[in-house]
Amino acid sequence: MSVEEQAGRARQASYRLATLSTEVKNRALESAARALEGHGREILVENLKDQEQARKLGLKDALLKRLILSESKLTQIVESVREVVRLPDPVGRRLLARELDDGLVLTQVRVPIGVVGVIFESRPDALVQIASLGLKSGNAVILKGGSEALHSNRILFNLIREAVESADPAFRDALQLVETREDVRQLLALDQLIDLMIPRGSGELVKSIQENTRIPVLGHAEGLCHLYVDRDADLSMAVELAYDAKCQYPAVCNAIETLLVHGEVAPQFLPRLASRLRGVELRGDARTRAIIPAREVTEADWRAEYNDLILAIRVVGSLEEAVAHINRYGSHHTDAIVTSDSAAARRFLAEVDSASVMWNCSTRFADGYRYGLGAEVGISTGKVHARGPVGLEGLTSTKYVLEGSGQVVADYVEGRRRFTHRELA
Amino acid sequence: MSVEEQAGRARQASYRLATLSTEVKNRALESAARALEGHGREILVENLKDQEQARKLGLKDALLKRLILSESKLTQIVESVREVVRLPDPVGRRLLARELDDGLVLTQVRVPIGVVGVIFESRPDALVQIASLGLKSGNAVILKGGSEALHSNRILFNLIREAVESADPAFRDALQLVETREDVRQLLALDQLIDLMIPRGSGELVKSIQENTRIPVLGHAEGLCHLYVDRDADLSMAVELAYDAKCQYPAVCNAIETLLVHGEVAPQFLPRLASRLRGVELRGDARTRAIIPAREVTEADWRAEYNDLILAIRVVGSLEEAVAHINRYGSHHTDAIVTSDSAAARRFLAEVDSASVMWNCSTRFADGYRYGLGAEVGISTGKVHARGPVGLEGLTSTKYVLEGSGQVVADYVEGRRRFTHRELA
Repeated sequence: MSVEEQAGRARQASYRLATLSTEVKNRALESAARALEGHGREILVENLKDQEQARKLGLKDALLKRLILSESKLTQIVESVREVVRLPDPVGRRLLARELDDGLVLTQVRVPIGVVGVIFESRPDALVQIASLGLKSGNAVILKGGSEALHSNRILFNLIREAVESADPAFRDALQLVETREDVRQLLALDQLIDLMIPRGSGELVKSIQENTRIPVLGHAEGLCHLYVDRDADLSMAVELAYDAKCQYPAVCNAIETLLVHGEVAPQFLPRLASRLRGVELRGDARTRAIIPAREVTEADWRAEYNDLILAIRVVGSLEEAVAHINRYGSHHTDAIVTSDSAAARRFLAEVDSASVMWNCSTRFADGYRYGLGAEVGISTGKVHARGPVGLEGLTSTKYVLEGSGQVVADYVEGRRRFTHRELA
Repeated sequence: MSVEEQAGRARQASYRLATLSTEVKNRALESAARALEGHGREILVENLKDQEQARKLGLKDALLKRLILSESKLTQIVESVREVVRLPDPVGRRLLARELDDGLVLTQVRVPIGVVGVIFESRPDALVQIASLGLKSGNAVILKGGSEALHSNRILFNLIREAVESADPAFRDALQLVETREDVRQLLALDQLIDLMIPRGSGELVKSIQENTRIPVLGHAEGLCHLYVDRDADLSMAVELAYDAKCQYPAVCNAIETLLVHGEVAPQFLPRLASRLRGVELRGDARTRAIIPAREVTEADWRAEYNDLILAIRVVGSLEEAVAHINRYGSHHTDAIVTSDSAAARRFLAEVDSASVMWNCSTRFADGYRYGLGAEVGISTGKVHARGPVGLEGLTSTKYVLEGSGQVVADYVEGRRRFTHRELA
């Protein structure tokens, strides 16, 4: 079957999926969970094939580690499907109910997006999570996994697809798997059939998707986050927040890359920071280097997402300067201020143009699970559709439903009737 | 100043605009309304220059009519600004408030989109409406009007810009005017500076914008709406809804282009329809033409947006067939069913994949004013961001704000603390 045929089938399936009740969707997901549970051995056998291939190709240890499935990893994967079953279903939620006139009622309800394309790298558990989230929100999902995980992805996909299709025929064609780069190239051209693309992986992956399709893309290519230590900061708190935001897990998108500090507190703050962040390579501007030893920072550092134990530091003269730096160099992902001055905090929170803005806490909290959204579809730095950590709701759109009893517009245009526009409970 | 410089200045202004209170924005808009009121004569003089030029160039009557300003038209324009003043301000509205832990509170609030580019044709009143809506929602707006209205647009733009800038210096650079096609070409490349493009005009305009930019586009290129007359329809109601939806204003996007009728009622319904729609050119499939005289319909008719007194008619065997036709050929704008069977209606409303779906009323109700949204930014057929008629809210995004008291992620990852995830009122 061609990629276009697959997408066309997914599109047809999406109309059926949009009408399914939460119960039907949950039953199908539970049956997928059982299928994965019941075929653990086969899954591990297929995964071994991928591991062997990866070793032959000399895949890096970090990538190999993400590829490996084990009994306990499988238990987690099955549990992740059951977690999605427990999440509230956004579809059908009413956002508005308004009487336009007697017997003419407008509602706005959440509906599935339709057909979602997801492209992810290496981890086979991503396939399971994304398929579950997509089906729970009533979408057809076209999946493209990393070629390193080909065998694992195939068996996981087939088990889930068969399980949900046996649970209810409405799920026929709801999941589609594509496997090659050429398939992806074709997918990206199908803007009439695919409503949303979600790339999950490196910044390069996200950028290459964004630059090669007219389908809306949900995600972020960069996570260049800042911590600004204000004149009125509690310096002990600031040191601990910097440590957590830089060191707790430096490879992730919500870790900080640049620290900005107000000139009035820099002389007390920077030596304490340097002592707490021992082992982190510090790169500072001239004013920083007048206080602590650090490598000389370059313009490129302000735009660098190190994802490593490196921190760029700049001493600023004011809150304005800090905000201007963040809006200019940041990736509009997550930025935080440490201050005891609530007026300064309010200003920072309002003027910094990022998906998440924070006051006196670590940027590392920017995450769907921590925000209480349940499983995370991704983190978006775009300003249309969903922004910030995105839960199930990011896989939905809305629809206006108008129910009448024969009303025609001419009566209102010609003054025989008037709108009441009364909000209903 | 280059277009890129203009967009850069708009971007800088957008950070200030995001912090303005509703009162400041309303005061600036009121001062713009007064400026337009106080300079009526100058505006009409400039408008006469456009009219002369248009007559020289032999502009069509319909376009010329849209170009002409008069005393009474000016009064309406001023009133439209004051209507925007009266609209509720979406910015700052809280969408979520959740305690993540003691003293760690997450909110999600509406914020302006940032920088919005608007490209519109002929009508100079569009400039005023769009500038008002943009400023009310805290956005910087880059405007490109039709070249036919060059002089009118310039004076309206300058009066509004000067008025809002004198009202508050925060509005400096908030409005930018560009004038040539080459300017538009440059605008469309500035996806790092412009957050949203709104084309208002013909389908060709919208399509050409969509195809030439990576900036998200809000709008619809087509309005191919359907009315489906079900087996259980009240046929008198169906005739009147068809008349209203086709004839009340055939040139607009929410008028119907195709009528579908169930085979069981076609013999009674179609003759009554033909008699009520005298003067409308009917194009029917074979089953239609077996009942009433009509021109033979072609495949191209199912995809045609006539915007004229022409109606394509198809007799279908079932609700499923009607839904499939609409999802296949429609533009996902607005589609309606006439039926007394509520189960059939529910199915239609759920399965038809359109921004507005309707039951027993005219598709012509799909409109921001009629829906009670206040002034309309546009109607979107896209599924991400806003869908359907779009009010001020469509010019906003959201932002997560997390306020803490020194919390670090390590405490939660290492099990020393647990999230409470408690919804706040």
